[in-house]
Amino acid sequence: MYTSHGDDIYPHPSLKANFSSNISPYGVHPQIWEHIRNSLELLNNHPPPGTQIGKIPSTLCEIASKYHGLPKEYFFFTNGSVEALHILGFLLQHRISTIPIPSFAEYEEISKSYNMVENFLGYHDQILKQENGVLFLGYPNNPDGKSFSQSQIFEYAKSFPQTLLIVDEAYIDFAPHLQTCIPGIPAFPNLIILRSLGKSFALPGLRMGYVIASPSVIARMTKHAPSWNLNSLAYATASYIFTHYEDMLPNISALLDESKSLQKAIHAIPGYRVSESPLHYFLVSLKKKESAQTLKTYLLKEHNLLIRDASTFRGLGSEYFRISTQTPQKNQQLLKALQAWEEKRATR
Amino acid sequence: MYTSHGDDIYPHPSLKANFSSNISPYGVHPQIWEHIRNSLELLNNHPPPGTQIGKIPSTLCEIASKYHGLPKEYFFFTNGSVEALHILGFLLQHRISTIPIPSFAEYEEISKSYNMVENFLGYHDQILKQENGVLFLGYPNNPDGKSFSQSQIFEYAKSFPQTLLIVDEAYIDFAPHLQTCIPGIPAFPNLIILRSLGKSFALPGLRMGYVIASPSVIARMTKHAPSWNLNSLAYATASYIFTHYEDMLPNISALLDESKSLQKAIHAIPGYRVSESPLHYFLVSLKKKESAQTLKTYLLKEHNLLIRDASTFRGLGSEYFRISTQTPQKNQQLLKALQAWEEKRATR
Repeated sequence: MYTSHGDDIYPHPSLKANFSSNISPYGVHPQIWEHIRNSLELLNNHPPPGTQIGKIPSTLCEIASKYHGLPKEYFFFTNGSVEALHILGFLLQHRISTIPIPSFAEYEEISKSYNMVENFLGYHDQILKQENGVLFLGYPNNPDGKSFSQSQIFEYAKSFPQTLLIVDEAYIDFAPHLQTCIPGIPAFPNLIILRSLGKSFALPGLRMGYVIASPSVIARMTKHAPSWNLNSLAYATASYIFTHYEDMLPNISALLDESKSLQKAIHAIPGYRVSESPLHYFLVSLKKKESAQTLKTYLLKEHNLLIRDASTFRGLGSEYFRISTQTPQKNQQLLKALQAWEEKRATR
Repeated sequence: MYTSHGDDIYPHPSLKANFSSNISPYGVHPQIWEHIRNSLELLNNHPPPGTQIGKIPSTLCEIASKYHGLPKEYFFFTNGSVEALHILGFLLQHRISTIPIPSFAEYEEISKSYNMVENFLGYHDQILKQENGVLFLGYPNNPDGKSFSQSQIFEYAKSFPQTLLIVDEAYIDFAPHLQTCIPGIPAFPNLIILRSLGKSFALPGLRMGYVIASPSVIARMTKHAPSWNLNSLAYATASYIFTHYEDMLPNISALLDESKSLQKAIHAIPGYRVSESPLHYFLVSLKKKESAQTLKTYLLKEHNLLIRDASTFRGLGSEYFRISTQTPQKNQQLLKALQAWEEKRATR
């Protein structure tokens, strides 16, 4: 269990805005809330024992199958994406893992937990040529919004059929410039796609991860997963989301426009350098190499704003932090606070 | 993932009563429902990253610690007890496991998943003398309600300090004749207690398991567990339950009285033999060794009642089923239906 993630709101009850988590800032769609409230009585029974089990008239995997246009044998649901990574970690023990950095800390955590030998490479380097390995790819990547292209990924899957490619599409709904790797699934049995409903639909507390992969990978994962791993409310909510997916999505294009403006505005403040990102989240560094941790503490104490100290990402220095775009009013609060810190520094 | 558990309600939407699951038949306490409804907005953020993390003013482990009277370092929360079994399984790979039978199918499932060498022994046999092993004990046991005594368990823990004792207290709230093994925890670092809030408080769909063990076992489990394994609503609900535990418990004594009457009444019908149990659940066998699966199908089709076919428990023949006592009115429906099956058989 890695405990230095963002969204660490609990120690800060008087928070005014939270820029530390990459989930949609537009909250939960009212219809999803209504469906959740109407589904609470399901908690009174065990969840269906497996999302892959065919006994139920219309299982969650069947519903996801209809939405994504692949047979239900290609799907498995997990208690968040991190559980999927753990199950895969167990099945892939002792392999050599390749992790472009910076990236989601759990890739390294899983590699360590399951005795993999780790290779780290910069996100601009060429993908390591490694047979019989495991490659973890954020598509798009967290924390920097970068990505290899779909064709690069398919090319790699084809060239190294004995290496497993774990392609994490947790943020793909926020990346209209990317094409999902799902169409490659039937052709490449070594391609494993991780998905999450928690980010797009602003429900990370409910734990709704899923995996799309070849039926043989799915069968091995299902066999090894804990029974009842998906809670009843996650099951019901995910079922609802898949039948109303596009209608329930937040306004991504407005969010990305807002992100562009925010990146520009922060970059315009003298002390900050923004690493441009096509996503709603992006990295910022303090030009004078001051500690982002100090800035985080200042913003919390003086402005009740929470940012993500990104120095915990392997490959990033102590001057890095990550911002996830919020609503315009909150973004203005952040800009003022970053400006205030800059002025305070200037007068020191 | 084992998929032949009870509580398999989803394929049977017109069910009148469900005798297949051992959870409290009295439903969820209205105050718990109220707390759940008031906590839904927590789903909008990630859960606290670990239930063991000390940063939060009052963590779930601290709250459980106050209730149980042991320091918080002795607690870890899991996505149901089955996740705890999986984490332990990984940490105890390749050991020799001992499983008294019949018992909860997950003990065997875990042993197989993590390459343990299994020994099965009858629940009346003496506990196998095994150093460096793992012993799984239901306390009380499912499906038969039997138990070794607390002093036998402590004696074993003392005699075999290199063997891990996994004592599953999921149903201990329903067993006032037993004393919890928790007082043995500080003395025996090889004692691991599994607990569940889902059974007593009728919320198995929410997944609220926890482990009480020595700080070194807890630290290893925490390190290996998936981040955010406890969903936000489970976190909030468990916190509430621990501060109102006794007030939220169902009327166990009424339930056990009802169980005694039901056992007696079923035993009085000629074709059935009840294996007496001090719990609310108990085993029944068909005297003429007919298949319990056939009876299950009949009860579903003709009476919309669901029982647990217990022939899937290792050690039990095809004539066994398990009944979990429900409310008096529902129990009467079951008695009538069992009587009807008996009469139908007699006239065949």
